[in-house]
Amino acid sequence: MKKFRLFTPGPCAVPEEVLLEMSRPFHHHRTDWFKGYMKAAAEKLQQILCTRNDVIIITGSGTAAAEAAIVGIHGQGSKLLTIEAGKFGQRWGEIAQQHGIPVTRHAVEWGEAITPEQLSGLLKADPAITAVMVVHSETSTATRVDLQNIGKVCQAQGKLLLADCITSAGAMPLKPDEWGVDVAITGSQKALMLPPGLGFLSVSARAWSAIETNKNQHAYYLNLNKARKSAVENDTPFTPAHLLVRGLVKALDLLLEEGLEKIWTRVATMAAATRAAGEAIGLPVFSKFPSDSVTALRPPAGITVKDIRNDLEQRFGIESAGGQDQLKVKIFRLGHMGFVDEMDTLLAIGAIEQVLYKRGHKFNLGAGVTAAQKVIAERS
Amino acid sequence: MKKFRLFTPGPCAVPEEVLLEMSRPFHHHRTDWFKGYMKAAAEKLQQILCTRNDVIIITGSGTAAAEAAIVGIHGQGSKLLTIEAGKFGQRWGEIAQQHGIPVTRHAVEWGEAITPEQLSGLLKADPAITAVMVVHSETSTATRVDLQNIGKVCQAQGKLLLADCITSAGAMPLKPDEWGVDVAITGSQKALMLPPGLGFLSVSARAWSAIETNKNQHAYYLNLNKARKSAVENDTPFTPAHLLVRGLVKALDLLLEEGLEKIWTRVATMAAATRAAGEAIGLPVFSKFPSDSVTALRPPAGITVKDIRNDLEQRFGIESAGGQDQLKVKIFRLGHMGFVDEMDTLLAIGAIEQVLYKRGHKFNLGAGVTAAQKVIAERS
Repeated sequence: MKKFRLFTPGPCAVPEEVLLEMSRPFHHHRTDWFKGYMKAAAEKLQQILCTRNDVIIITGSGTAAAEAAIVGIHGQGSKLLTIEAGKFGQRWGEIAQQHGIPVTRHAVEWGEAITPEQLSGLLKADPAITAVMVVHSETSTATRVDLQNIGKVCQAQGKLLLADCITSAGAMPLKPDEWGVDVAITGSQKALMLPPGLGFLSVSARAWSAIETNKNQHAYYLNLNKARKSAVENDTPFTPAHLLVRGLVKALDLLLEEGLEKIWTRVATMAAATRAAGEAIGLPVFSKFPSDSVTALRPPAGITVKDIRNDLEQRFGIESAGGQDQLKVKIFRLGHMGFVDEMDTLLAIGAIEQVLYKRGHKFNLGAGVTAAQKVIAERS
Repeated sequence: MKKFRLFTPGPCAVPEEVLLEMSRPFHHHRTDWFKGYMKAAAEKLQQILCTRNDVIIITGSGTAAAEAAIVGIHGQGSKLLTIEAGKFGQRWGEIAQQHGIPVTRHAVEWGEAITPEQLSGLLKADPAITAVMVVHSETSTATRVDLQNIGKVCQAQGKLLLADCITSAGAMPLKPDEWGVDVAITGSQKALMLPPGLGFLSVSARAWSAIETNKNQHAYYLNLNKARKSAVENDTPFTPAHLLVRGLVKALDLLLEEGLEKIWTRVATMAAATRAAGEAIGLPVFSKFPSDSVTALRPPAGITVKDIRNDLEQRFGIESAGGQDQLKVKIFRLGHMGFVDEMDTLLAIGAIEQVLYKRGHKFNLGAGVTAAQKVIAERS
């Protein structure tokens, strides 16, 4: 017997109910049948994203959704500031550059997070900037920014705010309307408990004005004006991955049944338990401002990330993530998104202890699960 | 009891085995597990597409794949000729325009097809043209072009040839390498028996040279250079809809088991049977050069397309397609792609007869199914 357990920070575990929902016979997508799913998906996404803004569904990855936003927003006279504290932050700057959009790419050390005050300084130094793009939860470094106060800075200075919420939406508190996030971007394969293939954007009225008046927008498939025109009719401009939309409605139902506040608490508990366990067994937390949706731990001296990940997979069927780019061998990551709860986290911590013990790491066997148990008990 | 039968020209019926394959638990996509599926998918797609060229898999619709090709191919000094004999032909011209690519958009009457001789004349008249984009099977009009001889014309005149094979690949004879098709584009939800969500391209060495040297390529998500770099490692540059890739491998296995020649014969038989039945009961075939993957029939006087489609759906669970744009009320369409065989076609013809009979159309009840039976018997 070998059980398989998906703990990567995306794709994340999907409920069997959702997988089975998608295996049911399906109709054509230009039908009232499918429009019903689109309508339900958009409404439920608004609830999960805490927004009254339009929600757009794109067939593609989170990157596709982000590109649609970046390209859509930036017409004549606009300038973007990207805050790049990891692989995904860098990607958004690359996209702007590739499209010839004026962009200032601000690098932040990986594992650190920009503060609202620092952002304010950057914006004051360059009044030409019209929009800011930040990563709410930087998956590559397991780090979060203070999006709420970043939103205040952007609002005070009249800048549009685009936020990559790919690993925050549905996992951590996120209130685009209240916080002034003009475009919140996410994807299907993270906290929304679906396989990969869909990207989502909530778009504010202010952002739509920029998108509507953008005359030099090249994108065709990733064109938000086209998407909006169809979305009004609960439709899509191009053939959608409608099987995934159907699964989405089921997954959102499950999430809304649990309730957003409870989900946020559950995810925060899993993350806090993992951090406490890591510190208790000699695996320091990498990030200075840890995200709750994913935790990055450093391996102990003498044991490689590769060894830990391989052992976890081979002995216990646990799929974890290593680091990306310069962090490749420096951290390993566990996700707290999707169809996982506190006891799954406990199981993963138990497995990490077993792996480290067998590899000769010196620590008090049981200290990790004990630390986790205390966190879970306190918060439940 | 109400049985549901999908006869639209995409999405098409998907085997239960493929749907169930996709409901199985899945692993992360950056794993040898998933690379195995990518490798198998690419190899099997090469077989289905009769090509040794690289096959690229994109998460998105056929339009996304087509945009990737159009944008990828057209660098400095290039000019595209689009042949537009229907809704999809028009779309490819629109994409070029939206990206500011020099393009001549050649309109052909809907239902007609350009001849190789006509194309040759157009190319001779404008030597600045570097590439041609045609639609092999124009789904909106159910019309095919002579792609083989169009390929000869393009090769003789040294033009790159891009072909929308979205409703021809896996349904009708298509031999990109032999015919000189540099980029053959298709999608998952037609003859390949999968739900929507993936686009595919086969790309020739000649096309890659153009794509590699294209310095002013804006696309990021739909960037073929990025896709190729990853494809060499059986990987993708962005998170793929890997559940669909898994289903794809299963669907391709089923198709290859039947064998390409047999599939082409089956599809051609279904189309010929539908055309013969239509003519026998007073529903003329719309197209002058009918495609084999989809048939467009004109309704009899006094009965609307909407009535026919609604009756088919309500009485027999058959989902058909109407016309698009200016053909909306003038034709209805039945697909011959995906998980359907000759007896399914017979069933659909039987249902059409029942619907027309009840609506008061004068014809010999049974003439349609009889005509179809003769075609099927002769060809089997």
